[in-house]
Amino acid sequence: MNLVGASICDEEMLVQGEARDIQLPNTEHVSQISVDVGGSLAKVVYFSRKAGTKGGRLNFRKFETEKIDECIAFISRLLDESRAHAPEREFVIKATGGGAHLYYEKFRDRLKVKIDREDEMECLITGLNFLITEIPFEVFTYSETNPMCFEETPDDPFPYMLVNIGSGVSILKVTSANTFERISGTSLGGGTLWGLLSLLTGAKTFDEMLEASQEGDNKNVDMLVGDIYGTDYSKIGLKSTTIASSMGKVFKKNADKRQFKPEDISRSLLYMVSNNIGQIAYLNAQAHGLSRIYFGGCFIRGHPITMNTLSYAINFWSKGSMKALFLRHEGYLGAVGAFMKHHTSRRNSRSFSLTEQLAQKLAATEPADLEVTLAQDTLDVVAAEESD
Amino acid sequence: MNLVGASICDEEMLVQGEARDIQLPNTEHVSQISVDVGGSLAKVVYFSRKAGTKGGRLNFRKFETEKIDECIAFISRLLDESRAHAPEREFVIKATGGGAHLYYEKFRDRLKVKIDREDEMECLITGLNFLITEIPFEVFTYSETNPMCFEETPDDPFPYMLVNIGSGVSILKVTSANTFERISGTSLGGGTLWGLLSLLTGAKTFDEMLEASQEGDNKNVDMLVGDIYGTDYSKIGLKSTTIASSMGKVFKKNADKRQFKPEDISRSLLYMVSNNIGQIAYLNAQAHGLSRIYFGGCFIRGHPITMNTLSYAINFWSKGSMKALFLRHEGYLGAVGAFMKHHTSRRNSRSFSLTEQLAQKLAATEPADLEVTLAQDTLDVVAAEESD
Repeated sequence: MNLVGASICDEEMLVQGEARDIQLPNTEHVSQISVDVGGSLAKVVYFSRKAGTKGGRLNFRKFETEKIDECIAFISRLLDESRAHAPEREFVIKATGGGAHLYYEKFRDRLKVKIDREDEMECLITGLNFLITEIPFEVFTYSETNPMCFEETPDDPFPYMLVNIGSGVSILKVTSANTFERISGTSLGGGTLWGLLSLLTGAKTFDEMLEASQEGDNKNVDMLVGDIYGTDYSKIGLKSTTIASSMGKVFKKNADKRQFKPEDISRSLLYMVSNNIGQIAYLNAQAHGLSRIYFGGCFIRGHPITMNTLSYAINFWSKGSMKALFLRHEGYLGAVGAFMKHHTSRRNSRSFSLTEQLAQKLAATEPADLEVTLAQDTLDVVAAEESD
Repeated sequence: MNLVGASICDEEMLVQGEARDIQLPNTEHVSQISVDVGGSLAKVVYFSRKAGTKGGRLNFRKFETEKIDECIAFISRLLDESRAHAPEREFVIKATGGGAHLYYEKFRDRLKVKIDREDEMECLITGLNFLITEIPFEVFTYSETNPMCFEETPDDPFPYMLVNIGSGVSILKVTSANTFERISGTSLGGGTLWGLLSLLTGAKTFDEMLEASQEGDNKNVDMLVGDIYGTDYSKIGLKSTTIASSMGKVFKKNADKRQFKPEDISRSLLYMVSNNIGQIAYLNAQAHGLSRIYFGGCFIRGHPITMNTLSYAINFWSKGSMKALFLRHEGYLGAVGAFMKHHTSRRNSRSFSLTEQLAQKLAATEPADLEVTLAQDTLDVVAAEESD
């Protein structure tokens, strides 16, 4: 299986939210499945061929871990379809994340296939390395004026730092394709925001919470420097609009919950969690001399305020010397990494020589020369072909 | 005014909670008052003489900033008493914290005295330096087996780091008696915990919240590594009991607020805020090569779980190379510092030579030789006398 020439299928490059499927132009094999079961979400990546097209597609789906049976039922249907095409084939599912251990027997017994458990951190890095080096239009920086400024594929992506924000946060230092270390983490992650907001705002889904935060004004619940000083505290560079204490106005007002708007609380806590992760990320990057910081995990969900806050925090603390990088498949690093484990040879497709081949090919190709096919409402941008 | 020989008045050395008044054996002057008005609390320090005793007493009181009028009324009564003894004296109040600016006119117009505004960070450090170098039995380390292990007065206390936890958190690097820099801070402080818990638990005071946290079990709301993995994630050193996601179980359980106990939420959020401050403190100390970390501010309140969590975090992250230090007058650093500004000469009492004098005096004195007077239920431990 050759993943060179992989690219993103999307209605348009700037759509945010759900991760777009990735088109794999040179793949000639049937469905392979991987799953990354985290504390809150189970992510599934599977490969499928479309009839009449060369190559195939990497598909991305997620389920609540709480509803793991739905995830297993979905995979079971995929397996049934695959077996219809290749009845004699022996399937293996690559599984990672804590749930690969917690639900191991359940997966094995229900799906009746071999389940290979893969290390979570290793999968995160394998997946990220693949996305960074092989997928054009995958990595971007965020700013309010340019919400999706795509990065060129780096000649040498190492070293870098990954901040993976799921229910909790893991921070990894990556110094080569196979060398990494979990250097830090924090329990103040997506699960914290979702938990607090579900209690405080009555929102039922994370998307509801994110939507509410866009309407909110945090200064109704946060204590700003100006609330304490009346002005800036300019001597130490604190503006009057700087948040001195997240949710710091609530207690002062003797906390009748009804007087605080869910939107304002959502905005405040989103800022709080994102700022805090940005600050801890910066401090770790500084300690390890790293300047490229990738943010992954399902917390981000392409949400502008989240990415803006993370970017702002990194830029503020590092005085512009570090860069916050985002990914279109941010939530699927582990699942993609587990997928890459299906064949050892596939790891080699992430070698520099292949990356450079692809880079040269793309550099030598005018955008108009890219094969573009419009199927239904999906615009598939396919890089030039290359055989195995 | 000579503050050498100052010591702590206390019913017993191990009582926690409200800051004990400090006995000043050699002071011969009448009431002086300082105030530090923060975002949530206003702290008052004033000097008083007891009839028939040599020296006097530094008194510590706090008020909610929301009820600043109570604070002003209290100071007004102190001024009335002072004027009765010294009708011709011109009073000056040293004021610091944001409220010294926000409520400046109010203080001036109601109290009809001169209000000198002093820089907050400078007062914090001046106050801390005084407490560290002049007050025996003030600084201690915390462990469950030895909750108040007093530190000896250091020969040279510099450099050190101060983490001042009020509504928000300020982190200062101090390299000499007069050289310091605010190097970091976080908006995730006491105000955050108080605000969230007042909304989530119905507790009306911070002491209620702290009490509840002692009865709570955070694993009913926090997602632990074991909840995700079923076991340890030993490969990267995460125990099954490690908190992976603070409040991470809430969203999974579809968040009916009633199913979560206030005690459990209190414990979880106290851990969350304290752990996070400990981690950010460690990262900053590491970046600046500091190993002595003082924790001040009204957040701590001598609360065992808070101090244990901060100590654990510093010890865990620094692998034992850094030390978390606490103070009996933790919440009054700024107010004490402002108090010290009453006479410039008083700053000199924090010089090393005087500290050494006191240290030598104490070292040469058997504990039994310390002058001990029992007045009411207060045990005053007074160091040997020294004239100005």
